[in-house]
Amino acid sequence: MSTGDLDPNDWNSFRAEAHKMLDKSIDKMENVNTGRVWSPVPQTLRNKFEENLPLAGSSANNIISEILPYGVGNTHPRFFGWVHGAGTPSGVIADIASASMNVNAGGRDHIAPVIEKQVLSWCLEIMGMPKGGSGLIVSGTSIATIIAMKVARDQKIKGSRKKGISQTQLVGYTSEQSHSCIKQAFDILGLGTEALRVVKCNKNFEIDLESLKKLIAQDKLNGLIPFCVVGTAGAVNMGAIDDLEGIASIAKSEDLWFHVDGAFGAAALLGKLAYERLSGISLADSLAFDFHKWFQVNYEAGCVLFKDEASHRASFSDRAEYLRGSERGLAGGDFWAVDYGPELSRGFRSLKVWAHLKEHGVEALGNSIDRNIKLAKYLEKRIHNEDCLISMAPTPLNINCFRFIPNLNLAIEKLDKINEEIVILLQERGIAVPSTTRINNQIAIRVNITNHRTQESDLDILVDAILEIGHELTKK
Amino acid sequence: MSTGDLDPNDWNSFRAEAHKMLDKSIDKMENVNTGRVWSPVPQTLRNKFEENLPLAGSSANNIISEILPYGVGNTHPRFFGWVHGAGTPSGVIADIASASMNVNAGGRDHIAPVIEKQVLSWCLEIMGMPKGGSGLIVSGTSIATIIAMKVARDQKIKGSRKKGISQTQLVGYTSEQSHSCIKQAFDILGLGTEALRVVKCNKNFEIDLESLKKLIAQDKLNGLIPFCVVGTAGAVNMGAIDDLEGIASIAKSEDLWFHVDGAFGAAALLGKLAYERLSGISLADSLAFDFHKWFQVNYEAGCVLFKDEASHRASFSDRAEYLRGSERGLAGGDFWAVDYGPELSRGFRSLKVWAHLKEHGVEALGNSIDRNIKLAKYLEKRIHNEDCLISMAPTPLNINCFRFIPNLNLAIEKLDKINEEIVILLQERGIAVPSTTRINNQIAIRVNITNHRTQESDLDILVDAILEIGHELTKK
Repeated sequence: MSTGDLDPNDWNSFRAEAHKMLDKSIDKMENVNTGRVWSPVPQTLRNKFEENLPLAGSSANNIISEILPYGVGNTHPRFFGWVHGAGTPSGVIADIASASMNVNAGGRDHIAPVIEKQVLSWCLEIMGMPKGGSGLIVSGTSIATIIAMKVARDQKIKGSRKKGISQTQLVGYTSEQSHSCIKQAFDILGLGTEALRVVKCNKNFEIDLESLKKLIAQDKLNGLIPFCVVGTAGAVNMGAIDDLEGIASIAKSEDLWFHVDGAFGAAALLGKLAYERLSGISLADSLAFDFHKWFQVNYEAGCVLFKDEASHRASFSDRAEYLRGSERGLAGGDFWAVDYGPELSRGFRSLKVWAHLKEHGVEALGNSIDRNIKLAKYLEKRIHNEDCLISMAPTPLNINCFRFIPNLNLAIEKLDKINEEIVILLQERGIAVPSTTRINNQIAIRVNITNHRTQESDLDILVDAILEIGHELTKK
Repeated sequence: MSTGDLDPNDWNSFRAEAHKMLDKSIDKMENVNTGRVWSPVPQTLRNKFEENLPLAGSSANNIISEILPYGVGNTHPRFFGWVHGAGTPSGVIADIASASMNVNAGGRDHIAPVIEKQVLSWCLEIMGMPKGGSGLIVSGTSIATIIAMKVARDQKIKGSRKKGISQTQLVGYTSEQSHSCIKQAFDILGLGTEALRVVKCNKNFEIDLESLKKLIAQDKLNGLIPFCVVGTAGAVNMGAIDDLEGIASIAKSEDLWFHVDGAFGAAALLGKLAYERLSGISLADSLAFDFHKWFQVNYEAGCVLFKDEASHRASFSDRAEYLRGSERGLAGGDFWAVDYGPELSRGFRSLKVWAHLKEHGVEALGNSIDRNIKLAKYLEKRIHNEDCLISMAPTPLNINCFRFIPNLNLAIEKLDKINEEIVILLQERGIAVPSTTRINNQIAIRVNITNHRTQESDLDILVDAILEIGHELTKK
């Protein structure tokens, strides 16, 4: 029986405590459809986290039980904010195992790299990328994008890992609807955000290919070095999917790295409804996407994939002496994550992703995604049928952006305020959680459906409440 | 009762499965002292992870149960490889709760930022850093170092976030014993690894301050711009602690950012034995360290801390329109992690760190660390008393580097091979897991003690086995 300094004194009572927490957690998950979507954290609970540094230990479990209702709300069927996955209960089982194993998945020869390699091979297949490609499971698309852009940068400037980039002005391209993580990657990698050229969009919020070509030509004339173009598969504001084949063809003729940001959208390759529009992902040099969004894996897990293993590895591999591998023993193994990304110590994320794909199978995951896309169409119709609701953007995938306009004479700023207030009141009353964004410089109510629990009836409740609150606000 | 597409059809049987996995996991943890330290993954188990992409779902739980014995081995009391924490069973309870909550801790107003702020405030206090400082919980020191070095870079070159660094040649400094993650941060940030000047060490493997001063002066003469110096609190090879006060004073007079890499060593501020030598950490502009090493939090969790909140925030804050905060509702909240680091979607790591500090208290954590330091002294004595074992470096903290030398006439290369083989055989036979490194260009057996379960008897077993295997190999 283990008697480490920090092991339980009484294993039976520890076991009972753990089972108690598990039951409470399952109770919460089983009843996730009921009650408020989001509840502000009560001051009394906040106060429990303003303690002095604990010198002596004391049980944390009662307080942990108390916090269960005060998460983001994304497990609830009427959570439509930003792009959050809803997760699944089955993920808890994998997390119990990985917590008890306490594996460092940064390298070496044990079960974690075996499972990670399997997951990456499945993902290359799902995304239509070459079998010989490579990848890495990461915390999410933000880190995945930094990894991908670094590889693109290093491929263009030979020697950049050693010499830095102080002698070169690289430039890259993406649309004005692309995600801020791309800009951030340019910032972190030393390129500067101004080196990311923002290409304007067509009326469907997709990158305008003619503008892209013109910008590239102009930058070349000015002596700059174009190195990559980033296509978006599911823009965060309203779900636009760029013409990925079109971008791929320009990237090829201009010798640019072609990266796809498929943070949530790439998952729709699992389903049928958006499959064709996304199939250009297979042409990418690199792809970033999240498991914790539309795949419904619990937070956090994302992925970066590469067409060419050698260039991926060339940007990260450089082990220190104390990490040198050997042919036998624990320092063996043929997949060291540290050769493919910046993290040396890493948790066992691959287990929950593998278990999720195995437990549910990709058909069920795809059906769930397709059902979300159909729900967005259902909501589109409901918006169309309501006089006071005006759609602000097309709904190519799973996101509806619209606006409550009770009276066409109201000023734009007044309408902005009303729509912002509707969203806040929906949240504060616990009815639903949409978020807001700006479309063509006007505030829109934004409803993102990446939740396998959402039903048509949830959207009806949402629309009815928007109308009710909207009228309540304008009658004041 | 929840009926999402991916929720259990039968909640009772799901509940039973989850409890079964929990019992198996606790059985494993309770018996962690027994059996082999590391076991290679059997081919039959590997084969189970070479399946085709699963179209239909099927239970993953039996296979998950099978993998439990095939982790890294770092939970076992005779694991001494690299620098791995051993973790604690109590962490499993926090992970059950956070998996079921499925929180995205990237921002907004819910319980996760409340808890993260509390943990960061405790950490600032533990490290002796100013109350008004800031920080972020991250995956580990590698990402923490990238964040810290980016802030240092951006402080020196105004406008670097937008304009990049193509017009400037920054240089930074660290000792030849410092960790490879610092070099990597220079690579990722576009500075290039050659911009990290490697300062030689004194005979105790600590940075030589005179050499540091000379290098800075020379670089300035050459028109380069020194921007930071990185001190090491616990070097990975043998635990050296740089003269942190000395570095701080040079940093001050040269206007350099002072970063401390305290990946595992900073934790020893919780104890008494190394407290004084580490107290210079309080002078740092930034500090990176891991919770999953000597703090014994389960993988993965690390931290970056800053003296000055404003400069930390200035390097990361830049929210997109759809992430704009509001004063009320879920989009409120006064701590958005996305303003302090690169990850937008983030799991609920702060919960397990908070629960760990609360459950054990910092005194017990500090005692456990001090006991490890004493065990390293015990091992030092045992090495000293054995004719065939030669110490290769001092043991300032918790790491012993030594070499089996049965016969002084053996060539260095021959001894390298023997010592490498000893380590591999110890691992393959399941007896213990030390690792190897190079000290003064010779292979050393490296025993790192960051494990709250290790006892003197474990070190005796280790030394006896090293001698036995060593003689076995040299008699061949």
